Amino acid sequence: MTMTMAGGMLAFTGSRLDRADHVRADPEALAASMNWRAKLLALDGLMPGLDENNALVWGTLADAPEDAELVFLGLDANENGDAKPCFAAVPPQGDASPRMANPRLWGLMQALSPGDLALYGGARSIVDWHARHRFCAACGGATRIAKGGWQRDCGSCGSQHFPRTDPVTIMLVEYDGKLMLGRGLGWPEGRFSALAGFVEPGESIEEAVAREVFEESGVRVRDVSYIASQPWPFPSQLMLGCHSHADDDALTIDETEMAEINWYTRDEVKAALAGDGSFIAPPPHAIAHHLLSWWISK
Amino acid sequence: MTMTMAGGMLAFTGSRLDRADHVRADPEALAASMNWRAKLLALDGLMPGLDENNALVWGTLADAPEDAELVFLGLDANENGDAKPCFAAVPPQGDASPRMANPRLWGLMQALSPGDLALYGGARSIVDWHARHRFCAACGGATRIAKGGWQRDCGSCGSQHFPRTDPVTIMLVEYDGKLMLGRGLGWPEGRFSALAGFVEPGESIEEAVAREVFEESGVRVRDVSYIASQPWPFPSQLMLGCHSHADDDALTIDETEMAEINWYTRDEVKAALAGDGSFIAPPPHAIAHHLLSWWISK
Repeated sequence: MTMTMAGGMLAFTGSRLDRADHVRADPEALAASMNWRAKLLALDGLMPGLDENNALVWGTLADAPEDAELVFLGLDANENGDAKPCFAAVPPQGDASPRMANPRLWGLMQALSPGDLALYGGARSIVDWHARHRFCAACGGATRIAKGGWQRDCGSCGSQHFPRTDPVTIMLVEYDGKLMLGRGLGWPEGRFSALAGFVEPGESIEEAVAREVFEESGVRVRDVSYIASQPWPFPSQLMLGCHSHADDDALTIDETEMAEINWYTRDEVKAALAGDGSFIAPPPHAIAHHLLSWWISK
Repeated sequence: MTMTMAGGMLAFTGSRLDRADHVRADPEALAASMNWRAKLLALDGLMPGLDENNALVWGTLADAPEDAELVFLGLDANENGDAKPCFAAVPPQGDASPRMANPRLWGLMQALSPGDLALYGGARSIVDWHARHRFCAACGGATRIAKGGWQRDCGSCGSQHFPRTDPVTIMLVEYDGKLMLGRGLGWPEGRFSALAGFVEPGESIEEAVAREVFEESGVRVRDVSYIASQPWPFPSQLMLGCHSHADDDALTIDETEMAEINWYTRDEVKAALAGDGSFIAPPPHAIAHHLLSWWISK
């Protein structure tokens, strides 16, 4: 299911793999799927391999290091109608700075088809989680992969651990026909996007939007509405795109997080999206780009 | 911000505390807030204390064990207009079966006001996370509380860990004027609710809804729309209430998860919500109750 919006397709959605819970949750079916027909996603650390057609490269399970933990990604039924089990090996190291993607990776990702990009994003999130979660948070003991990679079990205290997905709100704030956009600390000069922040324990989406906007801009919002969501694999966010209204445009900027916050007119946002504006708009793979497109088309 | 829907207020939303990021993120401001005026939420393990008016009981920081880790919950500005810092102590043990609440706890929670219930839910989620995450998942070393309880730092490898919030889809599936509701394995006879499941790495909300419904019922859905969200503190979910349409009502039930799945008419759902139906509807503190109310009123 590729998700589309006013701005086009949402990146990282639309993987063709069937996660096949009936396989990963059944030890016998999982063992049977680890056969000579199974495919192994080629990864160099967490970097994807691309062939001459800019498609993801696949090998066989024999290509994995002997002691590698293997994650069952799902079944790929796209070739000749039969479903091939797909795996990825957990790399020796996780991502040291998981919130960013490096320029070389962005180049590779932009070359991938939408379906391959979604498949890579999901695979990257899950193997990176394993690489960064080899020990039990409850007791410090070593954990081992379980359920085809959708669980880890502690060998000492028996705790079960599950892959993590962090919900993040990212929101348009509108006042008098203008949109609030900000530049985070350390961002390139001129680059502006929607404010964003993690949903915390004890909050609804709508409460998280209101708290984050107030924290970063000093502006109170109301009438929060959900627009669209997108998985974001750095390391494993669920981006929750929202719209809200402000009653006042007076800004009190949180200088520990934001370099600048401004209000932009519809024409200014339109020009920026066309690559010819007073600021640099978020790129098309980011949900913020689609939220801006949605806003100027509504 | 208490969230309301067709079925009334959503439980666990509407805490009156200001999370005051400018305090918790600033070591000096945080230290200054740990003063004699600060309030400590009374907890017996993870159970709340209630006074004779069924309000949460508060003590002072002097009531905490000397070596207790203290979480800064936020500022409470409700009394005389001045803002008191509020804390909770991390209990010695986490919740061993965090997905459930026991009957005594449900009784206490039903006696609390909506604002106190939301405050307790958020506090419970965060202190339980600390109690179950005393070690570093990256290296197994001991971690210590940081940023007023909104982070843990590893003393060995320096990794930073953040409180976890797990997004869970919970969805109405509609076909020909009927609604799909299921009874999970181990649920009481007659109790039915909306299907639900965790969002996995690499999925949008809409993709997770489609996957979960197909896994559990064999039914394909389309036109997924978001309705409302609710925090759920067992241990720390973000419930994402959605609606979707099915093109077919033929069921293939996943017997490893569900005991029964049925389709119910509007009148049957209405009767169940009124407590006089052919099945037992989800209780008002669950978002599923509000989704059903929304559906019969739309």
